[in-house]
Amino acid sequence: MSTPQHLVLVVHDPEGHATGLLPAEPEAPQLSVLDASATRGDGVFETISIGSGHPQALDAHLDRFARSARMLDLPEPDPGVWADAVHAIAERLAGHDEAWVKTVLSRGVEGGTTPTGWAYGSVSPDFRRERTEGVTVALLDRGLRSDAAETSPWLLAGAKTLSYAVNKAAVREAQRRGADDAVFVSTDGLLLEGPTSTLVLLHDGALLTPPATLGILPGTTQHDLFAAAGDWGLEARVEVLRPEQLRSAQAAWLVSSLRLAAPVRAVDGAPTAVDAGLTAAMNGALRARRA
Amino acid sequence: MSTPQHLVLVVHDPEGHATGLLPAEPEAPQLSVLDASATRGDGVFETISIGSGHPQALDAHLDRFARSARMLDLPEPDPGVWADAVHAIAERLAGHDEAWVKTVLSRGVEGGTTPTGWAYGSVSPDFRRERTEGVTVALLDRGLRSDAAETSPWLLAGAKTLSYAVNKAAVREAQRRGADDAVFVSTDGLLLEGPTSTLVLLHDGALLTPPATLGILPGTTQHDLFAAAGDWGLEARVEVLRPEQLRSAQAAWLVSSLRLAAPVRAVDGAPTAVDAGLTAAMNGALRARRA
Repeated sequence: MSTPQHLVLVVHDPEGHATGLLPAEPEAPQLSVLDASATRGDGVFETISIGSGHPQALDAHLDRFARSARMLDLPEPDPGVWADAVHAIAERLAGHDEAWVKTVLSRGVEGGTTPTGWAYGSVSPDFRRERTEGVTVALLDRGLRSDAAETSPWLLAGAKTLSYAVNKAAVREAQRRGADDAVFVSTDGLLLEGPTSTLVLLHDGALLTPPATLGILPGTTQHDLFAAAGDWGLEARVEVLRPEQLRSAQAAWLVSSLRLAAPVRAVDGAPTAVDAGLTAAMNGALRARRA
Repeated sequence: MSTPQHLVLVVHDPEGHATGLLPAEPEAPQLSVLDASATRGDGVFETISIGSGHPQALDAHLDRFARSARMLDLPEPDPGVWADAVHAIAERLAGHDEAWVKTVLSRGVEGGTTPTGWAYGSVSPDFRRERTEGVTVALLDRGLRSDAAETSPWLLAGAKTLSYAVNKAAVREAQRRGADDAVFVSTDGLLLEGPTSTLVLLHDGALLTPPATLGILPGTTQHDLFAAAGDWGLEARVEVLRPEQLRSAQAAWLVSSLRLAAPVRAVDGAPTAVDAGLTAAMNGALRARRA
């Protein structure tokens, strides 16, 4: 993601209500050095794929945006205003097969009570290689027990926050180990998610993904895949999964809004099974979404 | 911290070398919405107290700034340039007994290789009440084992990063429980630190603080307190501590650069012992530092 092509500021009043949109210049600085996004990673975000101008899974993204905001005690984002912001940018990207819009809500400038909001977007990178050749992953300890979200909600496990330094550090660690990406494991040995993706396995005719109650993000793209599972003669189930199930799966994917379904082709250096036909069908269905 | 009075940008080349300072307008937006500080909390910071124009514990802060940068695989911050930035702002705050400068280094605008750096400062809030009346704390699970920094360095335990959403959420949780601040405990039951402070206890004539190897920040202000312990006839030791030692301490403090030594006067609602004389002596010594 280099310079965004389009930027819209979402204006708020001190009570946290969105009052309107303001087009802005993406090349110009827009944020105070005192914005809580930059000083504390204190905010939430979503990244929404845009197919020929159509935001995909927009309602699910805005629901999750509001869920993350609640977990951080931020003002409830107004879904209508934020949908307008996404559409305003999506329309300007309608000439592209694959583009994206990112929405960001921060606690605002330190010392104030007015949140800061903005949305920006551009053309997506080319993910064809990742979608066909797949990615190699390293399993990394997430440091948290699988019940952390229930016992210790202040740890914000499962909120999509701007505090993603650990997610970035995990990808660098995976790369140091010769892998492309990471999959987090809880301290009690359960598969969680990738740093920017949801894990989906194929086992005995069923698509499987771990439950969000383990302190992971409810996947918007995974949700759409599961809704389409019947088209491929598959069941879809949310259940607790362990690393041996990833290694022995008939296929596995890291699923996310922009890269879509990237097949996992190795785990900690050991090759794993890839289902090229099903992967192509999944990505075709995901790309064809018009809502 | 409201609008900073003074702001200096630290200019970098694409290799990550600082090339100079640029005074900037603190009231104007300075950051791209694509800066990694705002998009991912992907950077590090320090907050340095300024006493009548003199930065306090500056070398220790710059050492820790570099340590955090290494933990995040950021370019090594040039200590000379960053010291110049701190001094440039400190000089303009020389008319104030207590002021502060914050230094921030982020990975830079996404898609690029040039880090972003800036430093800003202003007059400190009035902490007299916290330093004399003290603070009440709630013990909160940090979710991580005390060996997480050793076993899983990608979790960045002990790095002072911009990803502080959890630290902010912990303070909100403490306040929900009726306390002023939080003290984190590891999942294996060891005392760690506050979300923005170091914990110091007084037990049997010794000042005690937990070791940084537990995945906590090495405290710059705590370091200066320990160096002065002999002046008060006290030993000073770094050792593993448990919650019962906080509850039974002869005195306890949350120690940080701006608030300095804030005596803990209750833990989870139960009053704890305060040593008003020693607290005043500590804060006098900390405020009198000229380096």
